[in-house]
Amino acid sequence: MDICDIAAGAKKASIELAAMDSQRKNAALEAIRTSLKSHQDKIIAANTEDMAAAQMAGLSTPLLKRLKFDAAKIDEVCKGLESLIKLNDPVGKTLSAMELDNGLELYQVSCPIGVIGVIFESRPDALVQISSLCLKSGNAVLLKGGSEAAHTNKILAEIISHATAHAGMPAGWLGLLETRDDVTAMLKLDDSINLIIPRGSNAFVRHIMDNTRIPVMGHADGICHVYIDKAAAIDMAVKVTVDSKCQYAAVCNAAETLLVHQDIAAAFLPLLKVAMDEKKTELRGCEQTRRIIDCKPAIEDDWKTEYLDSILSIRVVGSLSEAIDHINHYGSGHTDAIVTEDKQAASCFLRRVDSADVFWNASTRFADGFRYGLGAEVGISTHKLHARGPVGLEGLVIYKWLLAGKGHIVDNYSGPAAKAYTHKKLDTHWTFQQ
Amino acid sequence: MDICDIAAGAKKASIELAAMDSQRKNAALEAIRTSLKSHQDKIIAANTEDMAAAQMAGLSTPLLKRLKFDAAKIDEVCKGLESLIKLNDPVGKTLSAMELDNGLELYQVSCPIGVIGVIFESRPDALVQISSLCLKSGNAVLLKGGSEAAHTNKILAEIISHATAHAGMPAGWLGLLETRDDVTAMLKLDDSINLIIPRGSNAFVRHIMDNTRIPVMGHADGICHVYIDKAAAIDMAVKVTVDSKCQYAAVCNAAETLLVHQDIAAAFLPLLKVAMDEKKTELRGCEQTRRIIDCKPAIEDDWKTEYLDSILSIRVVGSLSEAIDHINHYGSGHTDAIVTEDKQAASCFLRRVDSADVFWNASTRFADGFRYGLGAEVGISTHKLHARGPVGLEGLVIYKWLLAGKGHIVDNYSGPAAKAYTHKKLDTHWTFQQ
Repeated sequence: MDICDIAAGAKKASIELAAMDSQRKNAALEAIRTSLKSHQDKIIAANTEDMAAAQMAGLSTPLLKRLKFDAAKIDEVCKGLESLIKLNDPVGKTLSAMELDNGLELYQVSCPIGVIGVIFESRPDALVQISSLCLKSGNAVLLKGGSEAAHTNKILAEIISHATAHAGMPAGWLGLLETRDDVTAMLKLDDSINLIIPRGSNAFVRHIMDNTRIPVMGHADGICHVYIDKAAAIDMAVKVTVDSKCQYAAVCNAAETLLVHQDIAAAFLPLLKVAMDEKKTELRGCEQTRRIIDCKPAIEDDWKTEYLDSILSIRVVGSLSEAIDHINHYGSGHTDAIVTEDKQAASCFLRRVDSADVFWNASTRFADGFRYGLGAEVGISTHKLHARGPVGLEGLVIYKWLLAGKGHIVDNYSGPAAKAYTHKKLDTHWTFQQ
Repeated sequence: MDICDIAAGAKKASIELAAMDSQRKNAALEAIRTSLKSHQDKIIAANTEDMAAAQMAGLSTPLLKRLKFDAAKIDEVCKGLESLIKLNDPVGKTLSAMELDNGLELYQVSCPIGVIGVIFESRPDALVQISSLCLKSGNAVLLKGGSEAAHTNKILAEIISHATAHAGMPAGWLGLLETRDDVTAMLKLDDSINLIIPRGSNAFVRHIMDNTRIPVMGHADGICHVYIDKAAAIDMAVKVTVDSKCQYAAVCNAAETLLVHQDIAAAFLPLLKVAMDEKKTELRGCEQTRRIIDCKPAIEDDWKTEYLDSILSIRVVGSLSEAIDHINHYGSGHTDAIVTEDKQAASCFLRRVDSADVFWNASTRFADGFRYGLGAEVGISTHKLHARGPVGLEGLVIYKWLLAGKGHIVDNYSGPAAKAYTHKKLDTHWTFQQ
């Protein structure tokens, strides 16, 4: 099928999906779970094909690990579906209610965004996660996965489409794109697609943004910082820094740069060095750092680099505000932490650091939808519109304004004899009739 | 000053503005109000210059009316400032609070977006409105107004900058752009500008979207519909249609197309025609319409046209779902109304019509920030991300995630001996220390 037809079908389906009640959506999610289980052999066979081709093509071990979709991974996504079913429906919530005048009531009610295009990496579990999050939030979705996972993605999309159609979801709510040309074409369809979520590198996200007028919910690099304030507890400072950098270095919420207040540097840095040597993490320090501990020099580029590796750059700063300025200048607006016992310093940091996630005495690695209790996440947004940080179900809805009157007209509220609006807050919730 | 410097200054100011408490922001708004009053003569003199040039250039009467900024208009914007001061601060609200584990608490707290670029039409009052909304919501703003209002805008921006600096607001929070080249340059500054709000035609908004990777909160045409259901009260149907079309035809929330259920068309249309003839409004009907009343034929293009004039296109439909399909196909996602006594029909319409504002037995003309009780509006969004419909203060904020721990690290929550998260909702609110 042509991408324009797929998108038109998704738009049509999205209208039906927006009006679907929670019970039926949950039944459809349960049908996906059952169907994945009963077609497990077929899925594994398709994945074996992808794995063989990837091995032939010489993919690296970490990439092969992400690509693999075996019984254990299928179990995991099925557990994810069970949790998702238990979450509240984000659609149909009354966000505000106000009487404009006697008998004229305005409700702001959450509703799906519509049609969402997601371009994701070579993890087949992402396909199940993203499509089920979209279904739960009433959105139609167009998916383009990594080409290495083509066979696995195809069978997964077929199973999900079939199971949900059987459970009464509108045909076409899930569309699978198979080529890069499809993606290029999708970016032009701003009449039928409401949001693009690209998961991938900074450069990739920028490329998407440069080539579409559809809103993009994207993710820049994760250049995360830990700042050790002069009033930090030194043991905690070491522990939080080690966890932020070393607990899993290859991910976006790992720290890349450590900022240390000059008054605590001499006491703190030698202890940190011992801990980091144990973790076999390379340190790159500014001049002042290297007067205290032995390490490689950090150059300007280090402050701008997401290593995604066991390397940490270190800079000694003269004040809290120098730390904040460094973060707002070099950071990527992802996650930044302060370690301090001084409440006022913490407050100043949390308020002035312009990032999605700002932490006080906690590891940057907590920045994650699951840890936040959001359920699965569709991505982490470093933009400052709509949703910020880990994006779960709530990030996949918007609202509409519902006004219910008794024949009210504006003409009665204008001119010399104008009626006044009451603008009285209401406690009532909007309920759609079935 | 160069636009890059202006934007960099605005970014710097935005960090300070984000940390500003409500009292000081309100004092600055009050300072604007006082200063506009005390410099009234200067403002009127500048505006007289703009008006003279506009008259020389042959601007139309409605445009001249919009451009005029006299004592009455100054009074009006000052009243607007008074109301704005009384509104709640949208910044610093705790949107959600959750314990992740003992002593580890996550808060979702509203904060300003950052730096907002607004391109607006030739109404000098818009400059005061937009900049004060931005100040109240803690955002820095770059403004570009219509060139016809250049002198008035310049003096207004100077007065506002001066008054607010005196009241302790950070220098550079308000930047005035003076040329089109500045706008072109601004669109490239995605490092320092977080949101563009273009106010103007559909084509203009699209042009902006095609030339920036900064998120755009825009407004498409207002192709609004009124649908008269078979279960409509006929008198109410006439009244709501007349108000929706004729109360003020030149605005985006005026109706352009009337859809009528075939079962009620013969009873309703003749009465409507009498009312519309009185209002000197031209009717253009589909074939079925013209079998019932005498009017010009409507062609395909009529369903896609925002007349902004005393013209109404009429189409008879066979069913509620045909009306919904027409609206979702030809509409612009702005405002659409159903007139009916049938609750279920209303519910179906409100749920399935994919527009920002969906009304039941009320005129489309109610779609407006002031009427909604939002205070002034910065624009009406027909996009489906972040904010939809009339956008007031709440649309100018986003949130950040604040996590406060006692040295918590992720390593304790992973591996075989992993601690479990509690994910317990909290009733507490985040408070920044002063």
